[in-house]
Amino acid sequence: VRGSTGGYNGSVTTPADPVVIVSNRGPLQHDRGADGQRVATRGGGGLVTALSGLAAQLDDAVWVCAALTEEDVAVSREHGVAAFTTDEQGALRVRMVELDPEAQRKHYSVISNPLLWFVQHYLWDLANAPDIDRELVDAFETGYVAVNERMADAVAEEVEARGGQATVLLQDYQLYLVPQLVRQRCPRALLHHFVHIPWPQPDSWRVLPPSMREALLVGMLGNDVVGFHTERFARNFLLGCQELLDRPIDLRAMTVDVGGRTVRARWYPISVDTAAFEELAASPAVEEKRAVLERQRREHLLLRVDRTDPSKNIVRGFRAVDLLLEDHPELLGRVTFLALLQPSRQDVTEYADYVERIRRVVADVNLKHGSVDWQPIDLRLEEDIEQAVAAYTLFDVLVVNSVFDGMNLVAKEAILVNRRDGVLALSENTGAHEELGAFAVTLHPFDVQQQADALHEALTMALADRRARREACAGVVRHNDVGRWLARQLRDLEVLSGDES
Amino acid sequence: VRGSTGGYNGSVTTPADPVVIVSNRGPLQHDRGADGQRVATRGGGGLVTALSGLAAQLDDAVWVCAALTEEDVAVSREHGVAAFTTDEQGALRVRMVELDPEAQRKHYSVISNPLLWFVQHYLWDLANAPDIDRELVDAFETGYVAVNERMADAVAEEVEARGGQATVLLQDYQLYLVPQLVRQRCPRALLHHFVHIPWPQPDSWRVLPPSMREALLVGMLGNDVVGFHTERFARNFLLGCQELLDRPIDLRAMTVDVGGRTVRARWYPISVDTAAFEELAASPAVEEKRAVLERQRREHLLLRVDRTDPSKNIVRGFRAVDLLLEDHPELLGRVTFLALLQPSRQDVTEYADYVERIRRVVADVNLKHGSVDWQPIDLRLEEDIEQAVAAYTLFDVLVVNSVFDGMNLVAKEAILVNRRDGVLALSENTGAHEELGAFAVTLHPFDVQQQADALHEALTMALADRRARREACAGVVRHNDVGRWLARQLRDLEVLSGDES
Repeated sequence: VRGSTGGYNGSVTTPADPVVIVSNRGPLQHDRGADGQRVATRGGGGLVTALSGLAAQLDDAVWVCAALTEEDVAVSREHGVAAFTTDEQGALRVRMVELDPEAQRKHYSVISNPLLWFVQHYLWDLANAPDIDRELVDAFETGYVAVNERMADAVAEEVEARGGQATVLLQDYQLYLVPQLVRQRCPRALLHHFVHIPWPQPDSWRVLPPSMREALLVGMLGNDVVGFHTERFARNFLLGCQELLDRPIDLRAMTVDVGGRTVRARWYPISVDTAAFEELAASPAVEEKRAVLERQRREHLLLRVDRTDPSKNIVRGFRAVDLLLEDHPELLGRVTFLALLQPSRQDVTEYADYVERIRRVVADVNLKHGSVDWQPIDLRLEEDIEQAVAAYTLFDVLVVNSVFDGMNLVAKEAILVNRRDGVLALSENTGAHEELGAFAVTLHPFDVQQQADALHEALTMALADRRARREACAGVVRHNDVGRWLARQLRDLEVLSGDES
Repeated sequence: VRGSTGGYNGSVTTPADPVVIVSNRGPLQHDRGADGQRVATRGGGGLVTALSGLAAQLDDAVWVCAALTEEDVAVSREHGVAAFTTDEQGALRVRMVELDPEAQRKHYSVISNPLLWFVQHYLWDLANAPDIDRELVDAFETGYVAVNERMADAVAEEVEARGGQATVLLQDYQLYLVPQLVRQRCPRALLHHFVHIPWPQPDSWRVLPPSMREALLVGMLGNDVVGFHTERFARNFLLGCQELLDRPIDLRAMTVDVGGRTVRARWYPISVDTAAFEELAASPAVEEKRAVLERQRREHLLLRVDRTDPSKNIVRGFRAVDLLLEDHPELLGRVTFLALLQPSRQDVTEYADYVERIRRVVADVNLKHGSVDWQPIDLRLEEDIEQAVAAYTLFDVLVVNSVFDGMNLVAKEAILVNRRDGVLALSENTGAHEELGAFAVTLHPFDVQQQADALHEALTMALADRRARREACAGVVRHNDVGRWLARQLRDLEVLSGDES
C-alpha cells in the first residue's frame, strides 16, 4: 500500500511494508485526572505529529514505546502484549511496554541522562566527572541494557507478527541497543534509526569504558540507515565506527562496512509542523498570554525558551546580558530578557545544580543593573506552552546560545510565528545554524563578549534588515517542515528497499 | 654538510641546510646563585639532549628561545640580537629573545595555559568554562600574538642571515603562529613543527571563537610538515583543517592542500635519552634516595610521578586506591601509593584548585583506610628528580591514568630503569599506549572501578609475567629512543627537501 501524507508541501511515498515506530516516550501518555478518570494526553511536538500522520496513512502501523506513567502501565496491562488503538481519529495503534521501575530509573536517569546526554553534548568536566564505578556499570547492565532488551523483544514480536518484514523507525539515544537485537531476530526487517541529539566526535565516547561504548556502537550498526540532523554528525558517527570499532568506512559514500553488510549514515534536519504551530500561535489561549506579556514588556524584548539543561548555555547568556548592560548603559530600563525556562530532570544532580547556578547569576545581574521598578532578567521557571508561544510572537531578539545542540526547534518555532520582525541570535553549534545561520546573528557560545556584542547588533538592527532576515528564516522553516523531514527519510528507505529486494 | 649523530642506535642524516631550532623554553636557563654569580643550567629531558646533540653535529645551528628569567634577559641584552655560544662543549648557539613581561605572562599563563592546554586535552567543563571575554581576547592579541610575532621576527632574522635557506624545527603549542609568519618572510625555508601535546578532534577547537582558532590553524599551515606523537593526532589535525578552515585534505596521503602548497601531517613518538637516563639512575645521588625509599617501603609499592596537572587524572587515581582497599582489605598495611607530584602552574586558578582537590582526596583516603603506623597514600608535593628516579627503580606498579596525554614520558623513563619487574598500568588515552599498551595493564581513565581492578591484577601478577612485560616495554623504549625520534623526522625532511629542490 502506498499513499501520500498531507500536511506538508510535497508528496510522501509511504512504505509498502508495515511500519513499526519505536521510541522511549510514546505519542500519548495516560494519567488520572482530579476526578479519578483516565486521561490520555497526546504528545506535542513535530515528531509525534509527523509520525502519527504517517501512521494514519498506512494500513498497518504500530508505535512501540515505554509505559512511563502508572496509568500507562495500567493500560498496557489491560492490553497485554496487544497493541491498542488510540481514540483520537482511531488511526494510531500503540503498544506500551511495561518496564521494571528500577530498571527504567537507571535507564533514564543514570545512563541516558546525564551519562549519554553529556557525552553527546561534550558536557563532562573530564578532570572531575564522570566516575565510572560499580553503580554506573550496574545501571548500564540492569538498566540501559535491560530496557533495550525489553523494547527489542516487543519490537521483534511486532515485526514477527507481520511475517518478519517491516520498516522499523527507531528514535533517539535511549534505544541504541535495539537495532542489533531486532536484526538478530528479524533479519529481513529494514531498520532505520534517527538520532535527535548531536553525535560527537570519537574521543568523546572514550569517556565510556570500551565495553559500553562498543556495545552502543555495535547496537547502532544493527541498522540499515542511521539518520542525524547534520552531515557533521553523520561523519562523526562513521569516524567513531572507524576509530572505536576498527570498521572500514567510506567518507564519500558515507557508509560503514559491517562484515559485508553496509550501514548508511544520512542527515535529515528535523523541523516543526508549521501549520499546527501557526494555528496554536493564533489560538485564544495564546492571545490571552500575549496580551499580558505585551503589557509587561519594555521597549526591547530579548527572549529565551529552554529546558534548564547545561547544554543550553543559560548562565553564559545571562553573563552576556550583564556585559551588554555594562557596555550600553543607554539600554538600562529599556530592555527585558524574558527567560522562560522549564525545570528539567531535577532528579539528576547535575541538572539540579544547574538550576541553582542559573538562579545565582540572575540574582547577581538583577541586583547589579536593576532598579526599583525594573529588572533586566525576568526569569520564569515554569512550563507554560501558551506563554512561550505568546512570547515567540513578541520578541525582538531570540537568544539561542547552546553549547552544542542537535537541532534546536525553539529557533524554528519562534521565528515562524514572530510578528515583530524579531532577530534570531543563534549559536554556531546548533544543527539549526546550518539552515538558518545565513539569516541569523551568529553567537559563539563560549565567547560572552561576542554574545553581548551580537545582541547589541541584533537590538539595533535596521527594521528592513530584520524583516528580510526573519522572512528568509521563516521561509526556510516552512519549506523544510517536519513533513519533508519524514518524507526524505522514507524516500531513501524506498530506494534502499528496492535495491535489496 | 651531512654527518651522523651518535647516542642512538641508528644513523642520522643531518640536514644540508643550516638548522634553526625554535621553542619557548630553551636548552638552558640563567639564574643568579647565592653568591651573586650567574649560573647557567642546562635543561633536562630528551628533547634538549636530542636537539643539542643534533646541533653539535652541524656546522651551523642556532636555537631561538624566549628569555624566561631575569638573568636570561640580562644575557640576551649583552648579546643584542646575536646568538651566543653556550660554554658546555661550546657547540650549541642560542639566541634568547627578550619579551615584554606582561605579554609573556598573558602568552604563557592565560593563553597557552590553561586555554590551549585545556582545549588540547579536552579539559574544559564546557557548561561553565571558559568564558571568552575581553580580557581573554586581549591576552590573545597582546600576549600570544605579540610573543609569536617577536619570536617569528627572531627566527626570520636567523634564516635571512643564512641566505633565506634553512631547516626550521619548531616546538609545541606556544608557537602556533610562528610558521606562517616566518614563511611570509622566508619562503624558501623548510618549516617543521612538532606538537608535544595531543591534537584534539575538531569540535574541541570550537571552544575558541573563529578568529582565534582559525589564526592558530592558519599559523600551523605555514609549515611544510607538522609532526605529532601518534597517527590519531595527525588525523585530528587534518580533520580540523577540513572542518574549521574548509581546506581539502587527503586522509590516505595525510596531507592538506593550502592553495596549491601541500602540508604533511606525520607522527613520530617521542622518547627519552636512554643512555643518559640509565646513567642518572645509577648515580650516587639517586642511590642515596633509593636507600631511603627502600627503608620506607612496605611489601607493595604503587608509584605515580606527575606534575599536578588535571590532565594527569590524579584524583581518580586516588579514588581507585580507595576502591582497591575496600575490595581487598588484605592489602591494608601492605601497600603504599607513593605520589611524587610537582606543583605546576600555581599562578593559574584551575591548577591551584586542582592541588586542593588532590590534598582533599588524599586526606579522605588516608583517614578512611590508614592506621596509627600506616597511611595508604604517601603524597609528596615537591620537585626532586633524584627521588623520582630512585622511585622508578623500586615500584611494583607505576600508575599512569591520564585523562588524555600526548605521550607520557614518565612511563618510558620509569619502565626503563625499574629493577623490580614493575608493571606499567597505563591509560589507554596516552600516546605511549600505542607503543607499550600491549605489555601494560591498560587503565580506562574515567572508570575508577576498572582502575582498582587493574591495579589489583598488576599487584598480584606472577613474577614471570611481570618480568616478560617489563623487558618487552624496556626493549621498545630502548629501540625507539629519542635519537630515533629525531632521526625519523630528519630523514623525512631530507626526502622532502630533495623533492622540492
